[in-house]
Amino acid sequence: MTELGVVYTDIQRPDADDVAALSHYGSATIHEAMGRIGLMQPYMRPAYDGAKLCGPAVTALLQPGDNWMMHVVAEQLTDGDVVVAACTTNSDAGFFGDLLATSFRARGGVGLVIDGGVRDTADLADMDFPVFAKAIHARGAVKETLGSVNIPVTCAGAVVIPGDVVVGDADGVVVVPRDTVAEVVEASKAREAKEAGVRERLAAGELGLDVYGMREKLAAKGLQYR
Amino acid sequence: MTELGVVYTDIQRPDADDVAALSHYGSATIHEAMGRIGLMQPYMRPAYDGAKLCGPAVTALLQPGDNWMMHVVAEQLTDGDVVVAACTTNSDAGFFGDLLATSFRARGGVGLVIDGGVRDTADLADMDFPVFAKAIHARGAVKETLGSVNIPVTCAGAVVIPGDVVVGDADGVVVVPRDTVAEVVEASKAREAKEAGVRERLAAGELGLDVYGMREKLAAKGLQYR
Amino acid sequence: MTELGVVYTDIQRPDADDVAALSHYGSATIHEAMGRIGLMQPYMRPAYDGAKLCGPAVTALLQPGDNWMMHVVAEQLTDGDVVVAACTTNSDAGFFGDLLATSFRARGGVGLVIDGGVRDTADLADMDFPVFAKAIHARGAVKETLGSVNIPVTCAGAVVIPGDVVVGDADGVVVVPRDTVAEVVEASKAREAKEAGVRERLAAGELGLDVYGMREKLAAKGLQYR
Amino acid sequence: MTELGVVYTDIQRPDADDVAALSHYGSATIHEAMGRIGLMQPYMRPAYDGAKLCGPAVTALLQPGDNWMMHVVAEQLTDGDVVVAACTTNSDAGFFGDLLATSFRARGGVGLVIDGGVRDTADLADMDFPVFAKAIHARGAVKETLGSVNIPVTCAGAVVIPGDVVVGDADGVVVVPRDTVAEVVEASKAREAKEAGVRERLAAGELGLDVYGMREKLAAKGLQYR
Amino acid sequence: MTELGVVYTDIQRPDADDVAALSHYGSATIHEAMGRIGLMQPYMRPAYDGAKLCGPAVTALLQPGDNWMMHVVAEQLTDGDVVVAACTTNSDAGFFGDLLATSFRARGGVGLVIDGGVRDTADLADMDFPVFAKAIHARGAVKETLGSVNIPVTCAGAVVIPGDVVVGDADGVVVVPRDTVAEVVEASKAREAKEAGVRERLAAGELGLDVYGMREKLAAKGLQYR
Amino acid sequence: MTELGVVYTDIQRPDADDVAALSHYGSATIHEAMGRIGLMQPYMRPAYDGAKLCGPAVTALLQPGDNWMMHVVAEQLTDGDVVVAACTTNSDAGFFGDLLATSFRARGGVGLVIDGGVRDTADLADMDFPVFAKAIHARGAVKETLGSVNIPVTCAGAVVIPGDVVVGDADGVVVVPRDTVAEVVEASKAREAKEAGVRERLAAGELGLDVYGMREKLAAKGLQYR
Repeated sequence: MTELGVVYTDIQRPDADDVAALSHYGSATIHEAMGRIGLMQPYMRPAYDGAKLCGPAVTALLQPGDNWMMHVVAEQLTDGDVVVAACTTNSDAGFFGDLLATSFRARGGVGLVIDGGVRDTADLADMDFPVFAKAIHARGAVKETLGSVNIPVTCAGAVVIPGDVVVGDADGVVVVPRDTVAEVVEASKAREAKEAGVRERLAAGELGLDVYGMREKLAAKGLQYR
Repeated sequence: MTELGVVYTDIQRPDADDVAALSHYGSATIHEAMGRIGLMQPYMRPAYDGAKLCGPAVTALLQPGDNWMMHVVAEQLTDGDVVVAACTTNSDAGFFGDLLATSFRARGGVGLVIDGGVRDTADLADMDFPVFAKAIHARGAVKETLGSVNIPVTCAGAVVIPGDVVVGDADGVVVVPRDTVAEVVEASKAREAKEAGVRERLAAGELGLDVYGMREKLAAKGLQYR
Repeated sequence: MTELGVVYTDIQRPDADDVAALSHYGSATIHEAMGRIGLMQPYMRPAYDGAKLCGPAVTALLQPGDNWMMHVVAEQLTDGDVVVAACTTNSDAGFFGDLLATSFRARGGVGLVIDGGVRDTADLADMDFPVFAKAIHARGAVKETLGSVNIPVTCAGAVVIPGDVVVGDADGVVVVPRDTVAEVVEASKAREAKEAGVRERLAAGELGLDVYGMREKLAAKGLQYR
Repeated sequence: MTELGVVYTDIQRPDADDVAALSHYGSATIHEAMGRIGLMQPYMRPAYDGAKLCGPAVTALLQPGDNWMMHVVAEQLTDGDVVVAACTTNSDAGFFGDLLATSFRARGGVGLVIDGGVRDTADLADMDFPVFAKAIHARGAVKETLGSVNIPVTCAGAVVIPGDVVVGDADGVVVVPRDTVAEVVEASKAREAKEAGVRERLAAGELGLDVYGMREKLAAKGLQYR
Repeated sequence: MTELGVVYTDIQRPDADDVAALSHYGSATIHEAMGRIGLMQPYMRPAYDGAKLCGPAVTALLQPGDNWMMHVVAEQLTDGDVVVAACTTNSDAGFFGDLLATSFRARGGVGLVIDGGVRDTADLADMDFPVFAKAIHARGAVKETLGSVNIPVTCAGAVVIPGDVVVGDADGVVVVPRDTVAEVVEASKAREAKEAGVRERLAAGELGLDVYGMREKLAAKGLQYR
Repeated sequence: MTELGVVYTDIQRPDADDVAALSHYGSATIHEAMGRIGLMQPYMRPAYDGAKLCGPAVTALLQPGDNWMMHVVAEQLTDGDVVVAACTTNSDAGFFGDLLATSFRARGGVGLVIDGGVRDTADLADMDFPVFAKAIHARGAVKETLGSVNIPVTCAGAVVIPGDVVVGDADGVVVVPRDTVAEVVEASKAREAKEAGVRERLAAGELGLDVYGMREKLAAKGLQYR
């Protein structure tokens, strides 16, 4: 049962080298490498063009229109962390802006993924502090009701356990469970290697029909050329 | 990490009497009694007017537009179970209709909660087989890709562990963790008792301002009457 | 400038006979009779089938996810009033349920129009307390931040001045300025009378092309029959 | 190229007995029987509970917020026709209400499918004049710009040629090409017969896994029971 | 009651120096400085990256899909004005493009805020004529039905009186009542000064928990660290 | 009736010089020049800023979440072709990414219009391979069910016949029937010439009221200046 009003101060993070290795891969590659799980809903968009992030999740469960826990979570950050903020119900308030970005960065935070709204997006772009959010909304938040920090949360349809790695780029946000990071790096590497070979063949004009050997299966299903 | 291609056949269910007791309370009451957690997104709507359900969750993780696991989950049902079907990504295909409803009912199932589409809704109403869904869509599903059965899933924003109790009615769908059902029943009962007293006073014309003792706090915040 | 934290206790209401006369007309008729102004956005829907209301507006400006002002507005109701609740920003929380409906009714209120969410909709249907809302949501509201009562508000795109008459039915919600109620009744009556004659002719098989004399204008615009 | 400003007065309709036979089948069954083509988008909903229709399409291409062609199309109706109204761009105005319903009925029309808004929905329910629409909107339409009647149109994502049969019910709206009605009736009949047998077996407690012989393919794909 | 078919030619504008002073502040700052009122709905977005505007509103009330009043409003512009265009009902037609932008600019206009669609957005970016709109839509508008110019309008949920100042940037659009501009400038200035101090402390690694003195209140609410 | 499982290998394309001439005009101009038909829904957006395309359509009808036909269509491309991909029902899966872009380009393809999702959008921008899509989604597609290639399709509300020319830019996507390309070029040219003259007059400060001679008609409709 989701706990409210608690802050876990001691979470386990994955190996930093594994996180660094994972940061070379895009969200689509990683999602495929994981067998097509762990993807957040496609409504999660970068707050500015070119925003990208990769890091262990420190989580916050917010109440709707209330960003109190964003200040609580700031204290729990260590170098390289990404804040993943969920909400007990849907809310597109502007929970986050340049002041919190300044605070997060000063404490080691390298980005934010939030199932809600943000503001000061021009400042975020100037700071190059990457944010993935559901909405952009100038409307601010109150500080009245407790949520929690560093409990498992559901953010944009994906479960995030503190210490899981989140990767965000132009294609979306994907969550990699903490104890699978190394293997996902390997799988991503393998996938990219395989894709590189395929890309070369396709660029040379070969068809996917032949590269992937699809013609027989298509014919078996009854595809007719006229 | 979410597993694909597995079926857990032995899940723990809550005490049947507790489930029966819980069924007397509505989703809004239960949600409040739990401290405002566990609620699915409000896009989950009854497939017909008056649909209501309460029972332990047997879960299915579906692939988009693919309802193969719905047939797999049918075998795992026991009397009183509710199927909770999530999807690895958003999809509003018609995953479910009167044939599956017939099958679920024959195996003891008492309802469905699905983060996707359903069809044959007139038949579902005639059968009075309660369904809560994201969409109504005549478009059918394929049977090509494995998902899983009885793993933890995220359905419409709420985490559901097999054996958790789901309660659905006109106001929405709420999830009660298996080992808290008894206490949530008590909390719901207490809440209803308290509300009954308040309702009586309000019906007699007393104001919430007085019943809840709000006037002082409002004045302290600076409310002015003109 | 919209005031926050104020309650106006002395508003002017339209003539009760005019309101009673207006209640015989539907929202579509009234909207047409007014020259196609005053209509709320079409996302405003009845909370249950058959809900209908007509009465002078007592207004509340709510903060997102906060229904404190709903208790304040209850005290300002007189017989026949409809509460019109707007919000300082978009919010679909469940601001209203059966307890507030009980209170509003006990104080003379005959309905609610709210640019937000409501719950306990089965109870509202049982009570036949008409509600028009943007959403149905079991999620409750907090009581922390002041809004206002009986100031002009913008609800679902329409400006509502306290004392304006709101009319809601299956087709939507329309707002009639207080000092135009009598003339809108006349215009609605005239429109219905005219429509009755047209309806009779159409029912007899005459075409709108002829009843409305459209053929010439269509031909002038170049319509060609083939 | 879509023609504007034309009315085709002589369209071919399918055999009336075939249409009558088709009317016994639901939209989901027909959609399946056709190989899963011809379905309109799921945002098309009945304007009142229980609305159902089946008949040859007489088409209108409307301009946004303009229902002039609805009067033109009325003249082209013969007994049993359904009007299918598309729009040159998306528009949710209230293009249709009880007066046009009266006119359509008087001229033989048995329903409307419109990729736009309608109003007077309580009257439509009272008349039991079935309508499937994108929106309910009290806002009326103007009569200023020419569209066309009885040209091929795209309505809610489906192409409709005049004389095609449209079938609408609680699950959606499907379009059956005119010269395939008889074969779709046969395919629907075959599908229902097959489903009846399956339903009986499922109702008796047999599993879809066995009825459809899925176990081998699931095992081949690697499904594991734990 | 909203008037149709009228143009007010003599509106009062705020002091130009106050408007110039206000233009140094962003929409989020101003919204906060005003006490969180006056914000348009977050669906209002800049038509191109980097668009910003600040100026007194000259208003137009449009009919759906009809941009006739855009030509009428052009004549009412003086240097520095922003056109605020509302619609009598929701419509996402392309009411505005490069020709009207050329005309507005030639007459002194410095931007547009429209609760509807626009087109020629690449040209608008090239011209750097800032536009905030609900939609981008190539579909053009007709010129058939009268609206009004320089009456109070409701645009994207906010009331705009002619002469009010509208400020738009990446975070949204906010409306400042004409006779409060000077005080809002002061409040914005004060807010920025206060934020500058906070920003410095946060950048140095201090926590919001301490800067804002939140720890005591959090503890009082029962927050637990584990 | 839409055929499934077929590939037409011999389609007619318009004159290449006509296509080249058409490419000088924007989607809004062309849409107007065609009399306001042929426009796709406004939810079709460029996958990256500045994407533009113009070319004859080679069509693919996809199944939801299944991009098998994208490999089949690659073989049918000739220099300058644009792939137009529709789906048998709504689906926002990521049907297309950088590998298919590489393949399409190698075979002569110059862009994609798809009523579904795409991914690898940063790569698409780097390649400058223009794509117009409904969604950006990292989620990949399966290859299980046959669709068709080079049959007429409905894409985002517009009918596309193989060989029709599609033009996409920041304002949307428009479809020009194959045998009207030359005349649409002429009409676009005429429109631009006319607009150039108008633009010059507007830029000089003349009003649309005078340039278009609107004053008399406005007065006739009753417009009043106060």
